[in-house]
Amino acid sequence: MDAEQLREYAHKMVDFIADYYKNIENFPVLSQPGYLRELLPDSAPAKPESLQDVLDDVQAKILPGVTHWQSPDYFAYFPSNSSVAGFLGEMLSAGINMVGFSWITSPAATELEMIVLDWLAKALKLPDEFLSTGIDSFFVHVESCFLISYFGITFHAKLSMVGSRVPGQGGGVIQGTASEAVLVVLLAARDKVLRRVGKDALGKLVAYSSDQTHSALQKACKIGGIHPENCRVLKTDSSTEYALSPESLSEAISRDIASGLIPFFLCATSNGLWFHIDAAYAGSACICPEFRHYIDGVEEANSFNMNAHKWFLTNFDCSALWVKERNALIESLSTNPEFLKNKASQGNMVVDYKDWQIPLGRRFRSLKLWMVLRLYGLENLQAYIRNHIELAKKFEELVKLDPRFEVAAPRNFSLVCFRLLPTENNVECANRLNRELLDAVNSTGKLFISHTVLSNKYVLRFAVGAPLTEERHVFAAWKTLQEKASALLRKS
Amino acid sequence: MDAEQLREYAHKMVDFIADYYKNIENFPVLSQPGYLRELLPDSAPAKPESLQDVLDDVQAKILPGVTHWQSPDYFAYFPSNSSVAGFLGEMLSAGINMVGFSWITSPAATELEMIVLDWLAKALKLPDEFLSTGIDSFFVHVESCFLISYFGITFHAKLSMVGSRVPGQGGGVIQGTASEAVLVVLLAARDKVLRRVGKDALGKLVAYSSDQTHSALQKACKIGGIHPENCRVLKTDSSTEYALSPESLSEAISRDIASGLIPFFLCATSNGLWFHIDAAYAGSACICPEFRHYIDGVEEANSFNMNAHKWFLTNFDCSALWVKERNALIESLSTNPEFLKNKASQGNMVVDYKDWQIPLGRRFRSLKLWMVLRLYGLENLQAYIRNHIELAKKFEELVKLDPRFEVAAPRNFSLVCFRLLPTENNVECANRLNRELLDAVNSTGKLFISHTVLSNKYVLRFAVGAPLTEERHVFAAWKTLQEKASALLRKS
Repeated sequence: MDAEQLREYAHKMVDFIADYYKNIENFPVLSQPGYLRELLPDSAPAKPESLQDVLDDVQAKILPGVTHWQSPDYFAYFPSNSSVAGFLGEMLSAGINMVGFSWITSPAATELEMIVLDWLAKALKLPDEFLSTGIDSFFVHVESCFLISYFGITFHAKLSMVGSRVPGQGGGVIQGTASEAVLVVLLAARDKVLRRVGKDALGKLVAYSSDQTHSALQKACKIGGIHPENCRVLKTDSSTEYALSPESLSEAISRDIASGLIPFFLCATSNGLWFHIDAAYAGSACICPEFRHYIDGVEEANSFNMNAHKWFLTNFDCSALWVKERNALIESLSTNPEFLKNKASQGNMVVDYKDWQIPLGRRFRSLKLWMVLRLYGLENLQAYIRNHIELAKKFEELVKLDPRFEVAAPRNFSLVCFRLLPTENNVECANRLNRELLDAVNSTGKLFISHTVLSNKYVLRFAVGAPLTEERHVFAAWKTLQEKASALLRKS
Repeated sequence: MDAEQLREYAHKMVDFIADYYKNIENFPVLSQPGYLRELLPDSAPAKPESLQDVLDDVQAKILPGVTHWQSPDYFAYFPSNSSVAGFLGEMLSAGINMVGFSWITSPAATELEMIVLDWLAKALKLPDEFLSTGIDSFFVHVESCFLISYFGITFHAKLSMVGSRVPGQGGGVIQGTASEAVLVVLLAARDKVLRRVGKDALGKLVAYSSDQTHSALQKACKIGGIHPENCRVLKTDSSTEYALSPESLSEAISRDIASGLIPFFLCATSNGLWFHIDAAYAGSACICPEFRHYIDGVEEANSFNMNAHKWFLTNFDCSALWVKERNALIESLSTNPEFLKNKASQGNMVVDYKDWQIPLGRRFRSLKLWMVLRLYGLENLQAYIRNHIELAKKFEELVKLDPRFEVAAPRNFSLVCFRLLPTENNVECANRLNRELLDAVNSTGKLFISHTVLSNKYVLRFAVGAPLTEERHVFAAWKTLQEKASALLRKS
């Protein structure tokens, strides 16, 4: 690590990356590469190679095999935003390259993370109990609660509950991904119940979710030893806009209690369930007053998660998780080996984030979120979100204007679910048609979209959210979709 | 994300980071900051701020609170290497900013990871079964096996076992940390046994480790629902150089089987245990022929892990894990929701790394390992390791030459465990003295070391491994240690 070599080489890399962004529209979005193994040697070189050789290889061999998530023509899954500020934050974090598992291993890293997550919690108007500088516990009375899934679809569940005192203190922590966020809170919820009822009751614990909830929850259940048959995946349909019906949730919970099982995860009811809100995607939009109502009821949640790396201009990975009861996390995830002991930790004077997450080591990820918030400011971030939602509305209008298509579920935020209608009324035929349309448009390399299945219907997902996407990219994507649809309909 | 703004700002950031490395010796290694919260505003700004303001704040408010892991005077815990190549790899990965959970989401990311981990496996002379291009299964006969802990201390366990056919194929995957590596293989081992004996047997599973094994294993057991009383932490002492005695392991296993319990994790014996080698730190040294013998017996392991981000010039995080039986991982960790389905995955034509790890999303981390291997070459990497080991030997000699000190455990690789001897023969007094010495030297800001406890003795750990450390830094550190020791002994 020579400072002057770093300077020389990193300046070259800056130009390489800036040129990449300058030309990003010229790449096919979804690559269909040949196989890299045939292009690279079988083993590592014994002698050093030059930077230029490596950059040439990146250009000729790596970039052709990259799916360009930053392309303005990327509309698949959900966005994964890069930005100047996010990139600078990554650079600085990689430059400092510390491993901030305990406060002592870089006090600034822990403290900045607490501060920046308080900033973001305030921008989202989360209850004070989620702040690191939280207020004392108080009584809660649940009237209703809402769950926003990864898919940006709102689930409503109204449950009356007995008020109860919230113990301990809350705070925010950056996880790598929403899957890790749901895992750590599920483990906290599991162990909290098991401390009460005894560890042999593991086989009786039941977690509840809708069939629209992200598969990360099922994976978390599996990791935590929750029996697969105790993961209640409750059916939803278009009658509730794919929201969980409070009646079906109540019924499922009552049935399980009657069978001697122990409901433990999803909704804060008098049964003492841990209620987690996964707003990985949609959370970003809640910094705009006009969208904040989507998380009304968050007061009743035990934990809340949004991914700044999705739609908030913060480079991957940066998944913000807030909990009201940090001790529940710590009791599940803390370790205290001799070689990590230090006065500050032993004195309970500081937060050691290692006890809020699965891994021990952790990067200085708060830097990039801090830079995004400072270099753009909240007003620009709101404008950024609103622009994408306007673009999605335009796309939705285009779909509605073409009678060959239908919007398959109400648009939420910047995600449009739609499908090509079949010429005859046959589900299998319709699904095949849309699968073929997806393949046809993605193979052009001009755009990349993805799909899902709603009520047995194969539907296409058009998620606006890449930082470089403008109206012209949306129009061009729609044109490609129409062209390929015409060709398919002619053929069928 | 404007390409030209990125270019302008990132060039500024390059100079900022290069200047940081140029001046790194001027910072106190271990910071004792004031509190950041008083220095920063309470909430995010509404309007954008300038890059210069942010950089000024980094200089004035963040860097003083950073513990400088890249300082040449950093000798605590284990190293966390930064290098020009590692940094460039991080930059490029942040620039491309893709989320490579499935092959389709960036084929080059998955393929490069498989290729580079094959390169590294070959440099470590791991058995072919750990390669992605692995050979067909064959019979194994275990004669002996070795475990290297996080601490660089070797555990020996010789166990005879019945030969058995290894099913499936192996391969390497980059995890974030060694703690995640041990968790995923523990889950794979757990579920493999439970598929055989039924999921209600979870409470009977037993994991074995020595009292020198990293606390990550206990955390993994807790996450996976292994009962704490079924985690056998077997005692070691200086008579076996803190290695696990094969006899005590055999005895513990036999005793557990007799009690109706099910041994499942640590050593590949005829009982069918999963044998994991955690060579997080020491693994790097095994690219040198003269140190490779420390992992003799790796043929018998089910999984092997080394952290390229510790002592291999690859910026954090990059923890390389190899398994022989990728299907065991996949069966524990796969999810297959509709919205992630694609032809390549459904056809089993590709590796989807999401099924080899806890999170769904993942960064393009193979780039930095690839750059380290190419820009330095294996010969320079070997020279790099050897130089640190020579420096550690020199430090060990210095300790031995001063009769007031003792080397507390045989030096392994670049880690020296030592302590100041008490004036009277009293364990408590000796421990207090060394705690005081640790505090005294760390408070100077001139160096940072850590500690552990071996056989009830509080010992100091001096880990050489920062990329910028030269002989003069080791000598200066020793001088500070001697001075503070003299002052303490005068006082006592």
